[in-house]
Amino acid sequence: MLQSITCLAGGVGAARFLEGLVHVYPPEKITVIANTGDDLEYLGLYISPDIDIVTYTLAGLVDEEKGWGLKEDTYKCMEQLEIYGAETWFRIGDRDMGTHLLRAALMQQGFTLSEVTDKIRTSLHVKTRIIPVSNDRIATRIKTPAGLLEFQEYFVKRKFTDRVLDVFYDGADKATPSEGVAASIAKADAVIICPSNPILSIGPMLAVPGMREAMAKATKKTVAVTPIVGGKALKGPLDRLMSDLGIESSAYGVAQLYKGVAQGFVIDNVDKQLLPKIKDLDMKVVPTQTIMDSAAAKAKLAQDTIRLAENL
Amino acid sequence: MLQSITCLAGGVGAARFLEGLVHVYPPEKITVIANTGDDLEYLGLYISPDIDIVTYTLAGLVDEEKGWGLKEDTYKCMEQLEIYGAETWFRIGDRDMGTHLLRAALMQQGFTLSEVTDKIRTSLHVKTRIIPVSNDRIATRIKTPAGLLEFQEYFVKRKFTDRVLDVFYDGADKATPSEGVAASIAKADAVIICPSNPILSIGPMLAVPGMREAMAKATKKTVAVTPIVGGKALKGPLDRLMSDLGIESSAYGVAQLYKGVAQGFVIDNVDKQLLPKIKDLDMKVVPTQTIMDSAAAKAKLAQDTIRLAENL
Repeated sequence: MLQSITCLAGGVGAARFLEGLVHVYPPEKITVIANTGDDLEYLGLYISPDIDIVTYTLAGLVDEEKGWGLKEDTYKCMEQLEIYGAETWFRIGDRDMGTHLLRAALMQQGFTLSEVTDKIRTSLHVKTRIIPVSNDRIATRIKTPAGLLEFQEYFVKRKFTDRVLDVFYDGADKATPSEGVAASIAKADAVIICPSNPILSIGPMLAVPGMREAMAKATKKTVAVTPIVGGKALKGPLDRLMSDLGIESSAYGVAQLYKGVAQGFVIDNVDKQLLPKIKDLDMKVVPTQTIMDSAAAKAKLAQDTIRLAENL
Repeated sequence: MLQSITCLAGGVGAARFLEGLVHVYPPEKITVIANTGDDLEYLGLYISPDIDIVTYTLAGLVDEEKGWGLKEDTYKCMEQLEIYGAETWFRIGDRDMGTHLLRAALMQQGFTLSEVTDKIRTSLHVKTRIIPVSNDRIATRIKTPAGLLEFQEYFVKRKFTDRVLDVFYDGADKATPSEGVAASIAKADAVIICPSNPILSIGPMLAVPGMREAMAKATKKTVAVTPIVGGKALKGPLDRLMSDLGIESSAYGVAQLYKGVAQGFVIDNVDKQLLPKIKDLDMKVVPTQTIMDSAAAKAKLAQDTIRLAENL
């Protein structure tokens, strides 16, 4: 059996995959490296959506329907802010607010995002270690015909309706991977790139100096899971984004982005015809059901992904 | 009729009095100068309890039973913070949190407490102007046998059980009255010191350089309303605090503290025997019902107070 697994994770898709993984593999032997390119500051709060989605999901507290936020949360604080005319398009639940308040306060006191992330996940009894890719600020920005947008402005406020001309990871080039990131990739018996957006979620992480090198050393044990099924993103803007950027909007397009990074690739059964093309990228490919519509489906996908990693 | 009234206000007692005042006098002709000595910072929020109590009360939104906070508020954010092991003895409702978040964010952006206070009260359709006594930080601190306590530590966390050796208004000596404070006292036809704690609520305000001088010029039109009835504080620690500090715990004791500041004094009917003693302090005294147990009682008290001011 694999002694440890390190995962690169974005938001909802990654969190659902990890939910399956912790059911088939010991959670305490998993390390999750989380994207911080979506982070935002709002009214003095520090919000780290991908970290929270992963943490809440692994804690069993996530609002399953939305995929983010805490279940059975209310929005009274937001309602009050609306009365004051504050911008409220980024919806934060009342319970969720506690997380952001604590994080901002601790970071103000000098604690790193890593330390705060660890405090929150342990408070919520999450056994899997979750590490932000960097404690330096990385901000994904989207160039559109309407101008350069902050990530959440593009994603939440404008509901990813803008055509994307380019994507920047502001600050990534000057960022340092946070403590444990490189080591956990080096030491792991398998590295899994979760079914996340390769450009918006995994891209910012690989743009941090040292990350691509760390991953390059790990190709013989790295498996990526496609976030695209039958040419469509299950959630979010990935399919359109890929087309906008001139990348084939398919599992093959995703595999191309991971060439040299992953040597194993998990695609959906519906995309079997792409198998030969992806194999030509020097990847071992396994087709399976990648749509995580039940606990069993999540566990099966995790199991198949682990098996592929074991066979690299 | 009086052309304008300026009030000095602490928290709950003052807010209830003001509720009566705006029923018998045009709210837009009233200016409230509010105490900021109780203000606290908590997890990066800026909380100004007396300003909020007055604002929420005049907006008709206060939790009437508690006297502070917003009615029908919930505490989910606090519950979440509790899970993280944060200090949660200062209870903030979810709606209320919106106020503190906005205030902290705007102050961070460089807006003054005065400006934020005005934005909040206008958003809540409060016609009465509310001005913090100063935009400089004043912190009331309580010397007790257990050490020097922050005001809210003494008041909320330790439920004012400590014996008080002394009271300090940290920062007050270097503070400047905020814009409009001195002018509104000078211009008003009457100045009312609301039924607030003279040491903990009015004291910090009078300790700001210029405030005692401004009030000294206004003695011919200044009326104070007793917060002590039959030797007891209706709410809070005032009676015990006065004894601890060697001041007679009675309406007479309060009147002594306002000698040279107010020339009119409203006492409760039950304290009629104190009338001659208080008159000896060069004060006109009116006994009436000061217990504000109904809307009618609040209005009557306000009416009697105005009448006394008119007759100074």
